[in-house]
Amino acid sequence: MYNPTKPYKHALVRLIESTWRTPYVRVESGVYPIIHKKFSYPEVQHSDGIGTKGHYHWRKKSFKNAVRDALAMNLNDLALVGAVPYALQDHIVTEDTGSTSVMAVMRALASECRKRKIAITGGETSHHNTVDGIDIGITVTGFIKRVRKNVFRVGDVLLGMKSSGLHANGFTKVRSLFGPGEWRDEFVVPTAIYLDTVLEILKKHQVNGMMHITGGAFTKIKDLLEGADAHIHHPQAFMPQPIFHELYERGVSDPDMYATFNCGIGFVLAVPKSEVRALIKNRALKIIGEVTRGTGKVHVTSAFSGKRIIV
Amino acid sequence: MYNPTKPYKHALVRLIESTWRTPYVRVESGVYPIIHKKFSYPEVQHSDGIGTKGHYHWRKKSFKNAVRDALAMNLNDLALVGAVPYALQDHIVTEDTGSTSVMAVMRALASECRKRKIAITGGETSHHNTVDGIDIGITVTGFIKRVRKNVFRVGDVLLGMKSSGLHANGFTKVRSLFGPGEWRDEFVVPTAIYLDTVLEILKKHQVNGMMHITGGAFTKIKDLLEGADAHIHHPQAFMPQPIFHELYERGVSDPDMYATFNCGIGFVLAVPKSEVRALIKNRALKIIGEVTRGTGKVHVTSAFSGKRIIV
Repeated sequence: MYNPTKPYKHALVRLIESTWRTPYVRVESGVYPIIHKKFSYPEVQHSDGIGTKGHYHWRKKSFKNAVRDALAMNLNDLALVGAVPYALQDHIVTEDTGSTSVMAVMRALASECRKRKIAITGGETSHHNTVDGIDIGITVTGFIKRVRKNVFRVGDVLLGMKSSGLHANGFTKVRSLFGPGEWRDEFVVPTAIYLDTVLEILKKHQVNGMMHITGGAFTKIKDLLEGADAHIHHPQAFMPQPIFHELYERGVSDPDMYATFNCGIGFVLAVPKSEVRALIKNRALKIIGEVTRGTGKVHVTSAFSGKRIIV
Repeated sequence: MYNPTKPYKHALVRLIESTWRTPYVRVESGVYPIIHKKFSYPEVQHSDGIGTKGHYHWRKKSFKNAVRDALAMNLNDLALVGAVPYALQDHIVTEDTGSTSVMAVMRALASECRKRKIAITGGETSHHNTVDGIDIGITVTGFIKRVRKNVFRVGDVLLGMKSSGLHANGFTKVRSLFGPGEWRDEFVVPTAIYLDTVLEILKKHQVNGMMHITGGAFTKIKDLLEGADAHIHHPQAFMPQPIFHELYERGVSDPDMYATFNCGIGFVLAVPKSEVRALIKNRALKIIGEVTRGTGKVHVTSAFSGKRIIV
């Protein structure tokens, strides 16, 4: 829990307590918040942070967007198992020895959590002189009403959802290509959150596989292929935003683009053909490929060059 | 969960899975480990890391000790609410772009978790070029069989437990006083873990209040005083180790010493007089003071100067 010696402790505690009114848990105040659950489903925990992107958010003081990024990195991964998040812990590491940035982050985080019925159950802020800017990490806990497999099956159609741009991965590469001097507003655009759409879809439709296109980008799909290959025809939908073309033009190869960046597609679903017609009525979803018999490869038709590559 | 594109992923997954045999949960393998609980007690979550001490562990490659520190910072705080830890997520941030340090950390963490029946349910490793050395953070989840208050009551006797040295706080100050050139082996001694002793004590004895002497050191006791003052007569027991004397001699004042460092006492219990005789049979516990009527102040007789100070 927050170090009570920090002068902004009381303001922080009030923010945290503002998130405790949820249908999933009752939180009791104490030395640490005690969580009484109103459910008994299986659970899943997940941790992720914004990494090197924090350097750019720090420069622009874009703390609201930074919080959206940290949440998105976790919630989009929870979507893969159809989990509903109910509690989280934050980990803020900053070079700021005052409270301004921490309070800005916590105000934004508490606001998002109130909307999403996620109770903040504590966290940790450390002021390091060994960090450049700010890092926001989150550990989220969710429950799963129905545990399902996550496999891309032969014959499935691949549906994509549009990304909002770079999201929060590949930033070490971005930083090396742009150096310390160059700036693009795209560096601080927050990551799209897909969890809500996915949970709605899972209520009514059969979905065999899902992948959040983040660290490792399209290579992560390989883990979900059993005797199958995935084929993504990128020029079909959700073409890369200009920032990706700029990265490509600075010398990133086609395979490296698709192994590092989402290139415009932030989330992929593998669904049986019979579900496609109903699902693409939702404008957020578009057909981007299919799954065939194969040996675990991901084939991509590059939107940058039209070349067919394997990632 | 770990980025599957990292080449050491499979070795990591095996380590994590080695911690899943516990009496508290059944963990099911999947996209993310699914946690099926064998209990329905209230729960508590807690996050903490080793902060600036990571800089010193990095220099000595003392990863086992670093893991002990990260665990101790969390488990000693869980002790305050009598919680039994059953699951954890790790957050490793390192400048090392290879896998050597991460694997060393995870081997040590998995070994500690197997001993303690804590299931590692996932985590996050990020290789930053914005961090100096390594930071190990942990989020731990525990259950509480009996929720209790934590208050230092008028008339209570204060019992202390010995620290192992600096533990893992106050290192920003240590670093500023010693500069980059000076080295002391005390910089990498791991934090003592009090949880096991505390859980044993709580089974048989009445304990009114407890405090882990870490960030904020003895000032944290103020939060637990209601119409009372705490008095610590430090020269009575657990005198400061030489490293604390060295810090004091470099110009840290008495109040700053006791507001920043544990000074030799790592954990404090407030117990009714009637429990004292039985408790001090355990050699780990010694009388260090008492609680009187008051206004929420912590008085300390300094072991460095013999002066009476208020922190």
